[in-house]
Amino acid sequence: MVAAKGRAAKASRATRRRLDTRERLVEAAQRIVARKGIDATTIADITDEADVGIGSFYNHFASKERMIETLVARAIEIHGAGLDRLVSGVSDPAERFSICVRHTIRMADHDPIWAWFTVRAGIYIRELGSGLGVRLLRDLTDGVERGRFSPRELRSALVVIGGAVVASMQGRLLGLPDLPDEALVAENLLRMLGVPPLEAERIGHLPLGDAHDSTLRTGTGGDER
Amino acid sequence: MVAAKGRAAKASRATRRRLDTRERLVEAAQRIVARKGIDATTIADITDEADVGIGSFYNHFASKERMIETLVARAIEIHGAGLDRLVSGVSDPAERFSICVRHTIRMADHDPIWAWFTVRAGIYIRELGSGLGVRLLRDLTDGVERGRFSPRELRSALVVIGGAVVASMQGRLLGLPDLPDEALVAENLLRMLGVPPLEAERIGHLPLGDAHDSTLRTGTGGDER
Repeated sequence: MVAAKGRAAKASRATRRRLDTRERLVEAAQRIVARKGIDATTIADITDEADVGIGSFYNHFASKERMIETLVARAIEIHGAGLDRLVSGVSDPAERFSICVRHTIRMADHDPIWAWFTVRAGIYIRELGSGLGVRLLRDLTDGVERGRFSPRELRSALVVIGGAVVASMQGRLLGLPDLPDEALVAENLLRMLGVPPLEAERIGHLPLGDAHDSTLRTGTGGDER
Repeated sequence: MVAAKGRAAKASRATRRRLDTRERLVEAAQRIVARKGIDATTIADITDEADVGIGSFYNHFASKERMIETLVARAIEIHGAGLDRLVSGVSDPAERFSICVRHTIRMADHDPIWAWFTVRAGIYIRELGSGLGVRLLRDLTDGVERGRFSPRELRSALVVIGGAVVASMQGRLLGLPDLPDEALVAENLLRMLGVPPLEAERIGHLPLGDAHDSTLRTGTGGDER
């Protein structure tokens, strides 16, 4: 019994250590990537920063690219959970949708490191099938059931919404002039979802409050002043 | 008189030579980038391929990144001109719009080199202010004047359209499963522009023909079988 307990404790310690190492690697990668950018970051940089042997990296990730995908998925997940908290008191699906779209676009101003990181070519597209995409699909479905949205088809609407949000963020990250207000983007998307024009205008332009100062901190340091 | 003529001829030869060198560099860069990818391409690769001294590069471009932007702008311009030819016989602005959106998304299948190249993070966003963006704005304005479209505001519609097309292309380039048909994406965008649902469905799904076999060759080699 005692020996079995000892083995179990040892196994659980090993599992914990394994998870600790993975977590250390992810956190180290986040810091390095924020400092040097993705292209310049090497696996050796990450293992040095995490203070583990370079072989450890490959126990947890097949490649640098796989680890970056993990980082992006995690960054998006943290943001998604923040949005959930933010709209927890909002019952109208159209309002919830507009708030989430607008806050996500504004992340380009409030937390450019997060924004730059999540819009990296293509990776966000995979995330439309999980993370934020699942949340969005849930909200769209809810809106359809409650008669608020009448989209033609949900997956194609999802692609348009994801693309519109990312394009808006990229425009802001690049500092392009004459970019449209994010409320107009939300309004366009509400129209696409079948919300009548006047209603889409009203909802798209509701005051947003200052959620970025509290609820939507992502921990990249990019939103801390 | 003769001396002045001689000087003019010499100056024009110098200008021509300068343009020739620039053109040689651009074409060399296109070949190298198609072969090695953008990140692995060095300025020395480009000048070697063009058979000019490395200093020449900097007479024409401030950096590799600036040259890449030139290449992307050119690739997009060639595609835009192809789309113009393709829809020259189509009078309905909604039909023209749908054909252009769908053919551009399909480029990800027909000419993946072109597609991958043009959707590189962010660069296409700058192009929404020129090239394809100007064409799109012209078609949207035409549609508004002829009572076919009633968008809320044009620049924000442009961002949504550009983002939706790029997200659709990226999904195809990544080979993601369960991607929506490009006709559904066009239909969603037509709805956003104020085209009534049944009409948007009909126009979005009109047969496309096989323009990719002729009109839309971009010369990357990606569409030649």
